[in-house]
Amino acid sequence: MNKDLPRIEVCLSPALLHLFDTKDALVVIIDVFRATSTIAAALHNGAKCVIPVATVPECIELGNSIENSITAGERDGKVAEGLQYGNSPSEYPRSFVENRTLVLTTTNGTRLLHMVKDAAIIITGSFLNLTAVCDFVVKQNKNVLLGCAAWKDRFNMEDTLFAGAVIDKVKDHFTTNCDSVRAAQHLYNTSKGNNIISFLKDSSHYRRLSAYGLEADMEYCATPDLHPVVPILHGRELVVHK
Amino acid sequence: MNKDLPRIEVCLSPALLHLFDTKDALVVIIDVFRATSTIAAALHNGAKCVIPVATVPECIELGNSIENSITAGERDGKVAEGLQYGNSPSEYPRSFVENRTLVLTTTNGTRLLHMVKDAAIIITGSFLNLTAVCDFVVKQNKNVLLGCAAWKDRFNMEDTLFAGAVIDKVKDHFTTNCDSVRAAQHLYNTSKGNNIISFLKDSSHYRRLSAYGLEADMEYCATPDLHPVVPILHGRELVVHK
Repeated sequence: MNKDLPRIEVCLSPALLHLFDTKDALVVIIDVFRATSTIAAALHNGAKCVIPVATVPECIELGNSIENSITAGERDGKVAEGLQYGNSPSEYPRSFVENRTLVLTTTNGTRLLHMVKDAAIIITGSFLNLTAVCDFVVKQNKNVLLGCAAWKDRFNMEDTLFAGAVIDKVKDHFTTNCDSVRAAQHLYNTSKGNNIISFLKDSSHYRRLSAYGLEADMEYCATPDLHPVVPILHGRELVVHK
Repeated sequence: MNKDLPRIEVCLSPALLHLFDTKDALVVIIDVFRATSTIAAALHNGAKCVIPVATVPECIELGNSIENSITAGERDGKVAEGLQYGNSPSEYPRSFVENRTLVLTTTNGTRLLHMVKDAAIIITGSFLNLTAVCDFVVKQNKNVLLGCAAWKDRFNMEDTLFAGAVIDKVKDHFTTNCDSVRAAQHLYNTSKGNNIISFLKDSSHYRRLSAYGLEADMEYCATPDLHPVVPILHGRELVVHK
């Protein structure tokens, strides 16, 4: 990596975010299972926008105030009380979501997204839009922070692996002195021989979600480039970058 | 891994320590470059004990109050002003350190050690005492937290790799649902084909310390089992477990 290039770093948990300088940077929010996967699917299938919110009451209130909206979110693997839909990318086909506003509450991804205050650009990433995100990241020529949503601040494998996949594709355009970058890239490079999902099957999040019967969902979320859009934050709304 | 066995987890940074329950657990403090390597070397070479302290003034004060003591610590790769020696395992041969008390201040390892309040047992680990630490860890039959000192709260490769080495050796005696354990173990397993130090040569800490000419020191710190002792914390003192 060349020192004149912009910097790329990986934040493995929201609890480590204070260690990184996000001022004027491009931040990629990563919550593979499943918030940022669902966001990619909904926007690619024609949703007008996705509004990420932290709590169920906020979700309900905002849903009531926006015409043609859908309120969605899960707690413990079920649609949260008072909301209409869940947090699965498969719930948002074009026939359902087109031209509608998805108000989405999730535990980890939304919180991280709201924690990043001074970034120049915030986008969301998942395997479903891996290549689109990488192409966007390279074009901006800015310092980049790949922010893993983790699970209640705990390091998780799937978000780190996605960060590694991004680094593997964009590394020639950045410099770094961040061991998290090296670890994520090494994990990705030494696991991709198998497919992603088989590597993730032993992870804590996979185990938690498979107890709710969500294996097919996770397999979907681990598939690259099914929804090639770049969700970008404008005000409170995530919209497709054009 | 079997669910009836005690639990093993890895804390990748002191900033994540609050996520782990250390009550009645065995905590292994890991600061490979170089505090816990120096501790293993000094104790194996006959030091009476090592007293880890957080600051240079504390180190000086304690050194003045203890007979036959050595004050040691570095800041920016040099012996800190007011102290006598540095933070290199090679500075503490038996001829120098035997029967003396080493009062040692380090940036990262000491801080983590003082942050763990309610553990049943605290020991320190490094490649220099890898097998001794693993044997001890297995015998205690307690929940275990492998605590990486990291670098100013940032994830680092060498401490994580050592955690992975421990997990690789003790895994049959523990259960886990911690992705940090899986990541550390995978990093270790996929890197050990090369020797440890060649894998670490790209890490941020290696780069920082090699700018001070400390390559030989780091190569020493990456060598397994040169100092097969278990440093255990009794009150404020680290002594050899017998």
